[in-house]
Parts: sequence; structure tokens; C-alpha cells
Amino acid sequence: MNDRPIRLALLLPAALLVATAPFIHCEEGMWTFDNPPLKLLKQKYNFVPTPEWLDHLRLSSVRLNDGGSGSFVSANGLLLTNHHVARGQLQKESTAEHDYLRDGFFAATPDQEMKSPDLEVDVLVGTKNVTERVQNAAKGIADDTQALKARDAAIAAIEKENKDKTGLRSDVISLYQGGEYWLYEYKEYTDVRLVFAPEQQAAFYGGDPDNFTYPRYDIDMALFRVYDNGKPLHTENFLKWSAKGADPGELVFISGNPGSTERDDTVSGLLVERDVVGPAVTEYLQHRLAAAQAFAAQGPEQARLVGSTIFGLQNSLKVFEGRAEALADKAILAKKQAEEADFRAKVAANPEWQKEYGDAWVTIAKVDEQIKPEIKGQLFRRTDSRLFSIALDIVQYVAEIKKPDGDRLPEYHEAGLQSLRFEMMSPAPIPPATEKLYMSSALKLAEDELGKDDAYVQAIVQGGDIDTVVNSIVDGTKLGDPAVRKALLDGGEAAVAASTDPMIEAARRVDPIARANYKRIHDTYVSVLTPAGEKLGKARFLVYGKDAYPDATFTLRLSYGTVIGYPYNGTIAPPFTTFYGLYDRAASFSNKPPFDLTAKEEAARDRLDLATPLNFVCTGDIIGGNSGSPVVNREGELVGLVFDGNIESMAGDFVYDGSKNRTVAVHSAGMIEALRKIYGAGALADELEGKN
Amino acid sequence: MNDRPIRLALLLPAALLVATAPFIHCEEGMWTFDNPPLKLLKQKYNFVPTPEWLDHLRLSSVRLNDGGSGSFVSANGLLLTNHHVARGQLQKESTAEHDYLRDGFFAATPDQEMKSPDLEVDVLVGTKNVTERVQNAAKGIADDTQALKARDAAIAAIEKENKDKTGLRSDVISLYQGGEYWLYEYKEYTDVRLVFAPEQQAAFYGGDPDNFTYPRYDIDMALFRVYDNGKPLHTENFLKWSAKGADPGELVFISGNPGSTERDDTVSGLLVERDVVGPAVTEYLQHRLAAAQAFAAQGPEQARLVGSTIFGLQNSLKVFEGRAEALADKAILAKKQAEEADFRAKVAANPEWQKEYGDAWVTIAKVDEQIKPEIKGQLFRRTDSRLFSIALDIVQYVAEIKKPDGDRLPEYHEAGLQSLRFEMMSPAPIPPATEKLYMSSALKLAEDELGKDDAYVQAIVQGGDIDTVVNSIVDGTKLGDPAVRKALLDGGEAAVAASTDPMIEAARRVDPIARANYKRIHDTYVSVLTPAGEKLGKARFLVYGKDAYPDATFTLRLSYGTVIGYPYNGTIAPPFTTFYGLYDRAASFSNKPPFDLTAKEEAARDRLDLATPLNFVCTGDIIGGNSGSPVVNREGELVGLVFDGNIESMAGDFVYDGSKNRTVAVHSAGMIEALRKIYGAGALADELEGKN
Repeated sequence: MNDRPIRLALLLPAALLVATAPFIHCEEGMWTFDNPPLKLLKQKYNFVPTPEWLDHLRLSSVRLNDGGSGSFVSANGLLLTNHHVARGQLQKESTAEHDYLRDGFFAATPDQEMKSPDLEVDVLVGTKNVTERVQNAAKGIADDTQALKARDAAIAAIEKENKDKTGLRSDVISLYQGGEYWLYEYKEYTDVRLVFAPEQQAAFYGGDPDNFTYPRYDIDMALFRVYDNGKPLHTENFLKWSAKGADPGELVFISGNPGSTERDDTVSGLLVERDVVGPAVTEYLQHRLAAAQAFAAQGPEQARLVGSTIFGLQNSLKVFEGRAEALADKAILAKKQAEEADFRAKVAANPEWQKEYGDAWVTIAKVDEQIKPEIKGQLFRRTDSRLFSIALDIVQYVAEIKKPDGDRLPEYHEAGLQSLRFEMMSPAPIPPATEKLYMSSALKLAEDELGKDDAYVQAIVQGGDIDTVVNSIVDGTKLGDPAVRKALLDGGEAAVAASTDPMIEAARRVDPIARANYKRIHDTYVSVLTPAGEKLGKARFLVYGKDAYPDATFTLRLSYGTVIGYPYNGTIAPPFTTFYGLYDRAASFSNKPPFDLTAKEEAARDRLDLATPLNFVCTGDIIGGNSGSPVVNREGELVGLVFDGNIESMAGDFVYDGSKNRTVAVHSAGMIEALRKIYGAGALADELEGKN
Repeated sequence: MNDRPIRLALLLPAALLVATAPFIHCEEGMWTFDNPPLKLLKQKYNFVPTPEWLDHLRLSSVRLNDGGSGSFVSANGLLLTNHHVARGQLQKESTAEHDYLRDGFFAATPDQEMKSPDLEVDVLVGTKNVTERVQNAAKGIADDTQALKARDAAIAAIEKENKDKTGLRSDVISLYQGGEYWLYEYKEYTDVRLVFAPEQQAAFYGGDPDNFTYPRYDIDMALFRVYDNGKPLHTENFLKWSAKGADPGELVFISGNPGSTERDDTVSGLLVERDVVGPAVTEYLQHRLAAAQAFAAQGPEQARLVGSTIFGLQNSLKVFEGRAEALADKAILAKKQAEEADFRAKVAANPEWQKEYGDAWVTIAKVDEQIKPEIKGQLFRRTDSRLFSIALDIVQYVAEIKKPDGDRLPEYHEAGLQSLRFEMMSPAPIPPATEKLYMSSALKLAEDELGKDDAYVQAIVQGGDIDTVVNSIVDGTKLGDPAVRKALLDGGEAAVAASTDPMIEAARRVDPIARANYKRIHDTYVSVLTPAGEKLGKARFLVYGKDAYPDATFTLRLSYGTVIGYPYNGTIAPPFTTFYGLYDRAASFSNKPPFDLTAKEEAARDRLDLATPLNFVCTGDIIGGNSGSPVVNREGELVGLVFDGNIESMAGDFVYDGSKNRTVAVHSAGMIEALRKIYGAGALADELEGKN
């Protein structure tokens, strides 16, 4: 699985703003669609995608607000992504009676298609370079805080203008550490209905042990249908299905939204990650996982309620283990040091560059030292409660929207309000039992780490016992009902101020603390790191040109590579696996979890062509967020579905090693074979293959 | 595969004589049958094998002179071993018309059973501790060389007396670095007929890449029948076949002949291995492999002729890569240093021990320094020619047998003559083409490494061009005919001296050089290392007791362990694999070599129960030479057939890591399934299962 905890990185600004690695390895790179690696493709593969080819792929690709990627795969709005990207929606739609996560789902007819409570799907329909306007906004302002404010205001203005003009979601994003700023326009879809999902066990075969490994045997797919004005979306921007699928040795492309990488971090940033951030996050994840597992042990319904959470936590823990190993690897650190030394030497060799940009590393290293003692406070002050998060959003929303756009907290800029309201109004049920579990667990850890008197914790518990207070707040709140949320939003500041809902009361107490924290972090660190990062971004262009790709930002990128095995376990991993391998691994473990077959897989054994490719690997460069990305061939046909990286890819946050780093994908032939012969979904397979 | 190049170790005496590691890990150990780990078995498994249980297993186990192990598996002398142990015989019996190595072999009726040209099978029928007599022989002799001579004479006398008395092969072996000497009595069988062998590709599925790895899918088995007086051997000492086979989690035992380990080497010895021996051997193997591969490229018949040689060389290269990695591992070296420091400190803490044994490490370290410059000379002075080896044996044989037994070169002691003559008189054809290839290649490497004027090389080529001389010698010799050899042996020294056979002439010229070398090495180093090793052996008993096992010596040992997977590739390796996995790996590589199926495997696909276990792993401690060892359960039933170790076992020459080191075996149920459904050998399967 490849869901990196993107949001954690956002908590920790220093990790995001740093220098660019000068060495591009063959097949490395998550390229923006405005700057595809045409030269490399021409050289190595004698293939140059046309603008039309690139546009079609981009417009067929989607980003899901649940944190993954996907693609349109039929003229009638069928959307393909991973089961584990759909997992959040499946969990929200399941009940004790209908456990779609465990049992899967299949809508045999259109009217059975099941509307997702809060899934938003974004298509990147336009991009525009706005670097000059953003960078000029801060020009000549000596004070860092004021300069940052001016830059933020310019960004908000660009977004609002474009949103007003086009009606499209409009995000200004920073690339190359601020070396460039781009306006990304998205068409948003929010009527997204589930068509098919396999059983969790078939999708996530091998469970946590096999997660992030290969060879694999996972049917990690889900199909939604996107609706527009109540009808299936008719579109020409969809990927033609390749029945044959990915072939060993062939060139393939991946179009998706890698979440975040830290390949351009300075060495000082990597050391903060290694020594402070990584250990703290690991501790947090372990604490949450232990709490969720203890809860799951109470019974099958409890286990169902936290199933998705346990998956996510185990996934993140495996990621952080991999990151820790990569950062403990002396060879990796030495490579990073050598790259940085080369970059600095080249800047220093030019007096003008040195004067303009040469202090950036020192500035960043100084901030990195300053933020070390801040990390625990930033990480552990949290509730992990969905209802609390909604409450705080409501409290801040009513206040923020009264301010000029440029003065607001960033979540409340005009351009993003539509998506935010869609999320806040989600009708997905929020089970009180897990709210209590998560909130108590988070506050206890905060108390342990930051002390009983911590202002954040005390703002919530007010001297009381954590369990008692949390139970009372969760039992007392009415925010589980979207109508209550709507009434508060509509009522504005007065209604929120007058509310006696205990969750709103708690959020009101936390609000000033959260604001003060944001302001302090922003004024003290972000205001310094932003211009320092921009310096490195500009210097990189001067030193190395633009034959590079920016760090991942959960925006659309193009990767490419070859379908090919790699050295593993003293031998060679195959380019693809087959259904034979699924039945081998199950039998090899005496069909015991997490290596057991589902009843449907058992029953289909003799119907299947067991030699059909099931999963495969390619050298394309991906990271968490790419889950659900389509893999296409030179003809732009869909040959696979990205769902993971191998264990050797875990260092990919920091470096790319083309000899061993592999993307793991579901094979298009395997998906069709499964739909037809395991799930009896022949008509759906026909729609994918364009046979109806 | 697990055929370590045992003979190389014998070339390098210092590697064999050293101190004993004090820490016994659970399930570690290659125990002698006189000292089985009863306490450990009782503690961990609550199982104590009876003397009868142990005797039955010992008497059912065999050692093959081709360098592997095996076991009796029917009352009518059926002997089970690996295909790769039988490989030498299959190669010798194959011709351009009948390639049994490639195509396999099956004798449907007794008269089709094919007599092996020079396979000897030994059963260990008795053992006797002779430590006192051997050690006393050298007592009080101050001169090292004289002392060694007296010790060697005592050993030869013990062997001869016993051979004369019992008619059995009688070997005195040194265990615990000379801490003990034992007389091992073997019943020899030399009428050994091939009954069944699968195709090479089925036995060695995955080829060199998969060699020394797991998961595996190899039918690495062969069946011989041992004849006695022209009739199938009737015996009660055979292992009952377990149809169910090895079960995950169960306790199993391995009875076989591990070739050599260096776990008790001093640290100084390991460093010689790491810095000098390992690199030199690797160079030698690479040189030979390149020559053999170039020859194979000339055509299919050439490829057939060197097929077995290439296998052996690739296998050895993978071993030496693994050894080099283990010795480069700082953690392993640190462990070894800590163990030695503990041992030395405990000896030093007792003034009496210190006086008696304390100088041994210093003595050995001094010799290790002295032998470093000798290594290349010892390794590269060779011809790799079978005919030359026979010629030198003939030249030395006729001279040696006239001397008193104790004065002879060790190969010609009375007790070993029967086996030696069996080997020398082998009717197996010796193809001149490969003789030329191997001999030229070896002499050219010797010339490169030791110089054109090297006395050994010049004794053979006498100033001529290597290729020309070798071609002329090989074309001119008549030694390919066993009758010619016999005539020379019968004619004695006069006949050999008068011979104008060019290979005999070359051997006559080399003989004095080989003798002088033996004497110098023996007098200078072995005479010092032998008593030093004995000191360490004795000191180890005093310090750690006898709760330890001696280093491997290609004599019968008992290992035990659990059938269980292990952490691998970021996940878990299964305890066993199935036929499903074979078909998966083949399909995954598009059926390309070395991952292709044989025609018989293709044809049997639908007949097989694909979920049948094929290979499995257990924690038992093995090393090269154990190939072909039976794996038995508590009931003493055969549940598997050892054929390899996993990649993590490659450090096993020096250390045992029970968390990851695994023995790889063919499953008894898989063998039966293959015999019945792939090879149509139902009657043979019935005989194994005791059904006829």
C-alpha cells in the first residue's frame, strides 16, 4: 500500500522547504505535465508523447480527496481506483448488518450504485504559471512576516479571481520550493457512486506483512461512477482498456498525484527528520495502533469499526520504519551530503549567485535547530476526533469568512470553501464509540508527552478526568447530525457563540490556542523558510537548468518506466505474478489469515485461467498519493493500476534507486479475469473493455 | 544448492584448526551421534530420542563419495538423494545420444536400473573414541615434526588394525580441533544403480539465480538402488516414508554429512579467509567459469559436456560471494571477536589452563601470517584434469604402497586403498575435449598468477606453449582406458618408470614437486597447527564443557529444528511452497529459462493436485555436504529431503542465525505427487510408500 501520511508533513513546515537534488537518474522523476521529460524519453525509448497524448492522459486522471488517485475508464464515467483508496467510503457506508469493506460490493444495475457520502473527485483542467505575480508581491518588503503576508494575500487573490471567473476550484501551488508558483484549475465532482469493490481480503491479500512488498497477489481495485447533474458523466476523456495489459520490457507511464517527498530537503532537514520527527511520529502511531487493537479485541463489531483505522496506522508505521531505515543508511546520507556540497560549491563559485542565494542553507539549518523542540508540541496536540475537527472548523469558519480573503487562515480562503463545506456537511455516520476511543487516546498521549498542565489538553478537559470528559462531550454533542452543523454555519458567529453543544464549547476554548500557534509558527519559521526555499529553487534553476522535477505536492505528475523485475532475495523478482501465485501463497500458509482466500476466490479456482497476470512491477517513480494511478502504455491504453511500492522503494521519500525501487500495480488482464470469473461482473468487464 | 567446495578447505590447513565458539543458539548445531543434544531437545520439545531411534536413523543414513548425503528408503535398497548429488554420475553416463542429465532417467523394471561407474556409498556402522591413543603417541616428543609423524603413524595403525579385523572402511577423524579423535567404521557399497532422476530443469528449477534461495520449487531428488552381491540390498535400516510429510510447526531432524564449517576458527583465521583465501578462490572460480562458458557457447554438445562443471562453478561462486559478505559484515566479526575474547579471558583466569593452552591463539595467529603468501601457490598449482590426477595417483601409488603404512602420504594408507582403487578404476568416460579445456585453463591461470618460470607449470609444459603441450599430452595418453591404468598399477614402479605415456611422464615430473610441497607444508605449518588446535579443543572442554558440537568434517551429524517460515523481503516466507508456485514462477517469467517448465511438467499440470507441498524450510543447521540428507519426524519417518539453504544461510560457514537461517528441502508429499503424476512412476512411489 502506498498511503503516506501526507498531512503530517504539512504540520512540519521545515520539512517542505529546501534544496534540489542535482542528479536525475534514468526513469526517476515525478514530472509536472507542463515539463515532461521529453528529452529522456526520446533518448531512451525513442518515444515522444504529443501534447494531445499528454492532455488526454491528464484529463482522464483524477485526484480523490480521500488521498489517492484514479482515472476515468469508460465513456460513462466509470472511475478506477484502488480498493484501499475507496476504503474510507466503504467504511462510512458499512454497518453491523452490511459490511461492504469485508464483503465487497457490486451494483449489478445502475440504480444499485451507491452514492459516496463525502468523496470529491478533481480533474486538473488547466494550469498557469503565476510565479512572477506571487514572487513580486513580497519584493522589497524587508520584514519577513510582512513579506509572507503579502505573498499569501497575492495567492488568495489569484485563487479568488480565477474561481470567480471560471467557477473552477483554483489552487496556487508552490513547486521547486517556491522556485515556481502555479495556478491549478480543477473541475470538481461530488456525486460519486460506488459500482464495485472486492472483499477487503482479496484487495489486501497478505495484509500488513505483505504491505509494501512484492511479489503480490492483490485485487486492489474499486470502481466508482461519476455523476454530473444526476446522470452518469459522459466523457471522451477516459482511458481505453488494454485487454492484454502490461508486457514485460515495455515502456509505461503513470499519471497520478504523489503526496509528498523530501528529496530536495537540505541535509539539516533530513537530520531533523531522522532524529526528531521520525521517532515522535512512530511513537504516536504505535500509541494509536495499540489503542485501536485493544478496542478491536472487544468483539467483531468493534473490530469492524476500527478496521480501516488499523489498516491506516499499520501502513503508516511501515512507512516510518522504512523512512527510519533509509535515514539510518550511511550511504544514503553520504549521497545527500555530496549532492548538497556540489550545489553549494557551484553557487559559491559565482559571486553574484553567492550574494543572492548563498545564505539559504545556513538560514534553513538555523530554523531546523530552532524547530526541534517544537516538534512534539506540534504533533501531540491533537484529538484525532472527527467531530472535534468539524466543531473547530465551524468555530473558525464563521469568524474567518467575515475577513478579507487575504487575511484568513489558509483553509478558509474563498477558493477552497466549496470543497470545505462539502466535507463539513458529509452525511457519513461518525460512530461515538470510536470518537471516544480516538479522542481519549490522543489526549492521554498529549498529557503524557506535554504534561498535565498543557494548555491545549486543559482547554478541552478543564481539570477533569480525560475519559470522563471525553465521554461526556461525545455523548452530549449533536454534531453527528449534518443539519445541526448547517444550522450553526447558517447562524454565523452569534449562533456559534451561543451554542451549548459541548463539542462546540471545547472547540471555542481550543480556537485561540490553535490560532496563536498558527501565527507563531507562521511568523517565526514559515516566514523565514519561505524566502530561503525560494532562493534555493531559483539557484537550482540557474545551476542545473530545469531538467528536474519538483518534490511531490499531491498534484498531478507524470512518471515513466519499464515493466521489469529486479534483484531480490538473492535471486530475481518476476516482472509480474499470476493467479497461480495467489493460490500458492494461500496453500503455503495453510489458508491462515492474512493469507487466506475469500469464499469467492475459493469457488472461482477452477474457472480462472490461473496463468493470467495479476500484479506487476515497473520502474516508474511513485510515492503515497499515487495509489489508484493508472498505468498506460505508449498508446495511452490502461495496462495497470498502481497500488503500492516494493520494500526497496521505502527510501523513495528521500532518494530514488532505479535498480531496485519498483511500483507495484494490478494488471489490467487480472482485473478483467477477476471481474468476470470471481465476481460474476461480466457486464462491468464488458463496459471496461468497450464491448457494450 | 548446497555443495560447498569441501576440498578447497583441505588445501588450506590453517582454516581447519582453531578455537570453539562458546555460545550455542537454540537449534544450532551439527551434532555427532555419540553426543546428541538431548538436554536441548528435552527442554524445548519434550522429546528424547532413544538409542534405538538414533541407531536406526544413523544406519539408514549414507554418505556418497561424490560429496553428498542420502538415506535408505525401502527394504530393497532404494536410496534417496538429490538430483544434484547424482549429477556427476548422470553426466558420466550421458552421451550425445542419451543425455540423462537433461532428460532424466527412469528404470521401469529392475533390469533397466543403470549401474553407476564410480559411486561409493558409505554407512557409518560403528564409532570408537581413540583420543587417548592418538594424543599419547605424540606425548613427550619435543620436536613438532617428529610429534606429528608419531601422531600420523598412530592414526594409520589404528585404521589398518581395524580394517584388517573388520574388513570395514576405517577412518580416524579429528573432532573439536583435535580435542577428540574417533575411529569411524563404514560399510561400503559400490554397486549402486540409478533408478530415477527427473530432468535437470525440474530438479534445478530457477537455475543459478534461484540457487541458495527460498521460496523454491525444485524436484531435486534422485533414487538409486544399492546392490549387494549382485542383488538389491535387503535391509531393515531404511526410513519409513511419511505420505503427509513435514508439517508447519513440527520438530524435525536431519541426518547427514556436513562438509566443513569454520565456526571455531580463530579471528586471525577468519581474517586470512576474508583477505586472502576468499579473493583468490573467487578469482580461480571466475576464471574457470569463463573458460567453461566460452566452451559451452561453441555448440550443444560442448554445452552438454561442461554442463555439470558450470553448475558446480556457479554454485561455488555463490557460496564464496556469501562467505565474503558474511566476513565483510562488521556485526559478525564483532560477535566472533567477543566470543574469542570471552574464551581467552576464561583460560587466562586459570593459571594452570593459561600455562597449558594460553599460547595457542598466538601460535595460530603467527602461522596465519606466515601462510598468507603461500595461499596462491597452494591454490593455483593445479591442472583440473581428471586424467592427470589419475596419472599422479598411479605414480605415487606404486611408490607408496612399498613403504610402512605410517610413512606413506595420507591418501595411500592401507585403510583407504580399497576406495582409492575403486575411484582410479572407474570406467566412466573422460572426454578429451574437456580435459584439454580444464588443463589449459588451469595452467594458464597458474602461469598468470605465479609466473612463467613456476616450477610446477614448467614441470608439465617444459618451456612449450600451454595449449600445444596440453593437446599433445591429452591426445597421446591412453589412461582413458581403465585397463591401461590397471596394467600400470599391476606392473608397479618398474612399469610406471618405463611408461612413455605422456600423462604419466608429466605426472612423474610433477611428483617430486608435489611431495616436496606436501612435506614443507606439513612440517612447517601442520605440525604447529595440529598441537595448537588440540590445545584449543581441550581448553574448550574445560571452559565450556561438552555441550557443544564440533565443526563439520563431512562425517555423519544430527541437526534438528522446526518447520517454520522466516522474515524475508519485508514480509514472511511461508513454511512450504506448492506446485501452484512452480506454475506461477514459470508463467511470471513467460516460461523463459531458467524459469521454464519441462514438457512433462507442462503435460502434468491438470493431473497434479497443485496445492501439494513441494519444498519447505526448517531451522535445522546444515552446510554443503548435507545435500541429500533425509529430514525425519519424531517417529523417524522421512518427511523431506534436504537440498539447499536459503540466502540468509550463507553466513553459516561462520555463524548460525536461527531467526533467518533455513534449510530448504523437498517435501515427501511433493516427491510422491511428482513421481505418480509427472513421471508415471507409480510403482516406485508405491515402493516408497510401502504399498507393494
